[in-house]
Amino acid sequence: MLTVFGTVALDTTRTPFRTEIRILGGAATFASISSSMFAQTSIVGVVGSDMPADHIKALMSKHIDTKGVVTVQGGKTFHYDSTFDYNLSNRTANKTELGVVAGFDPVIPEEYVKSDYVYLANNDPRQNIKILKRFQKPKLVVCDTIEFWINGSRDDVVKMINMADGVVINDNEARLLCKEVNFAKCAKKIMSWGSKFVIIKKGEHGAILFTNDNQVFPAAAFFLDEIVDPTGAGDSFAGGFLGHVARRNKFDFATMKEAVIYGNVMGSFAVEDFGVKRLLSITKDEVEERYRKYRNLVQF
Amino acid sequence: MLTVFGTVALDTTRTPFRTEIRILGGAATFASISSSMFAQTSIVGVVGSDMPADHIKALMSKHIDTKGVVTVQGGKTFHYDSTFDYNLSNRTANKTELGVVAGFDPVIPEEYVKSDYVYLANNDPRQNIKILKRFQKPKLVVCDTIEFWINGSRDDVVKMINMADGVVINDNEARLLCKEVNFAKCAKKIMSWGSKFVIIKKGEHGAILFTNDNQVFPAAAFFLDEIVDPTGAGDSFAGGFLGHVARRNKFDFATMKEAVIYGNVMGSFAVEDFGVKRLLSITKDEVEERYRKYRNLVQF
Repeated sequence: MLTVFGTVALDTTRTPFRTEIRILGGAATFASISSSMFAQTSIVGVVGSDMPADHIKALMSKHIDTKGVVTVQGGKTFHYDSTFDYNLSNRTANKTELGVVAGFDPVIPEEYVKSDYVYLANNDPRQNIKILKRFQKPKLVVCDTIEFWINGSRDDVVKMINMADGVVINDNEARLLCKEVNFAKCAKKIMSWGSKFVIIKKGEHGAILFTNDNQVFPAAAFFLDEIVDPTGAGDSFAGGFLGHVARRNKFDFATMKEAVIYGNVMGSFAVEDFGVKRLLSITKDEVEERYRKYRNLVQF
Repeated sequence: MLTVFGTVALDTTRTPFRTEIRILGGAATFASISSSMFAQTSIVGVVGSDMPADHIKALMSKHIDTKGVVTVQGGKTFHYDSTFDYNLSNRTANKTELGVVAGFDPVIPEEYVKSDYVYLANNDPRQNIKILKRFQKPKLVVCDTIEFWINGSRDDVVKMINMADGVVINDNEARLLCKEVNFAKCAKKIMSWGSKFVIIKKGEHGAILFTNDNQVFPAAAFFLDEIVDPTGAGDSFAGGFLGHVARRNKFDFATMKEAVIYGNVMGSFAVEDFGVKRLLSITKDEVEERYRKYRNLVQF
């Protein structure tokens, strides 16, 4: 079983072309829908009573175990309101309302304790460290983090990385965390903190996988003509990566390379529509077809 | 035969680690040394009497035909003085002395007239258009351009592109030229001006080839731990690309994809030492070995 922990949110996303108000979002939401295409997935998070039941039903429609999603009665769901520029490349945060996420003391249903694969989506690193201790003996733990925690709780981020096996992180955040520009140096530094591998996500430029036995795998991004909403691409990448690893139940270099491509594929689906809309509609066949298409695309 | 036209320069390159004064540089220099690894190359350019004879001999040592390099007695060679930041990612121009390049009226030796392949390295687009008319019937003409000409002579740049078959251009310059951020849209715009294919070079993120029959080839960059001097990477890419095309004497999509990888390979050699130092020392075997290594690296 694969368990994803992180935010289950309501997003207000504004692009120059369209605005979507309080749609289903959150790092754990994207990651779990993405991983559910590959492996049995459970989700842990917290929402307020303002979270529409249909949104949770959408997760359940992907056979995601949502028992781990706690509803705080009278509480407010994490809400992120942001605006993209004309090129959809820069996002400005208008409002970040933590709501019930602040001070959440994560508990996990008994059935999740034996999860083999755990993804700690971007979240308070102290909460991530805490929840990690509740799992019995996961085979592989992967975490992500963002600017907010790197700036505010860097020591805890490093502690969390030490407890994880792998880190999936955005290019700019890797640079901020490591105070290095060169990605190889960033990866080496992160691995010196105890992580066995690092994946640096570069958005439209793809991703690079580094391992602590000095292997490297640079992968170009799947090529898209049009992007509708970049929200959740990185989380969908992580879900696809760990989902494929969980499906194969191994994480040798060859499997991890395939998993990076599945991550690219899932990220490419995520951005084709607002929020999780596209992710919810794709079929396993479409995923495999795009994987083959990608292989063809980069072949020479 | 492949003919390269562009600057043959003296570069003063300052990095936080070392400064090299008045070393051999220039777009045509990098491109021609790079292409000479693949095909018989001729170079057209202009230098002053301050250009050390050893520099021209270095080109000849790669069997480059330098008859097209005109020396203006008493004139000064194009000199570019720049400083890289600590990360070698940002360059500041300290001085740009055009010297004999300003107002050069390009002539080509009679033997070059029948060149099948022509690379118009970054240069005054009016000079590029002029020289192009002097070739009899080249099979493939590829050009590059930079910010300076896009800002100052955009109409001439578009005219030059109309006369060329392919464009090899940096990501930021493509965006500046096309007033678009999305690379696919940039490529479409450039092809609407008459070019049959466009390669957008993305530095450490690799390159993307677009063709006017809607084919796309994204290629990750060859991965390097350490970069010494980024100068000339793009010109070396172009030289490797066109060199391979000239060697195969065809430019179907499959050959162009291989050529993009050879471009990546040559760019990766160029940055391993100051100026053309590394390019001058590599062997054909090393080029092929790195090509195989690259294929291995991106395989999954």
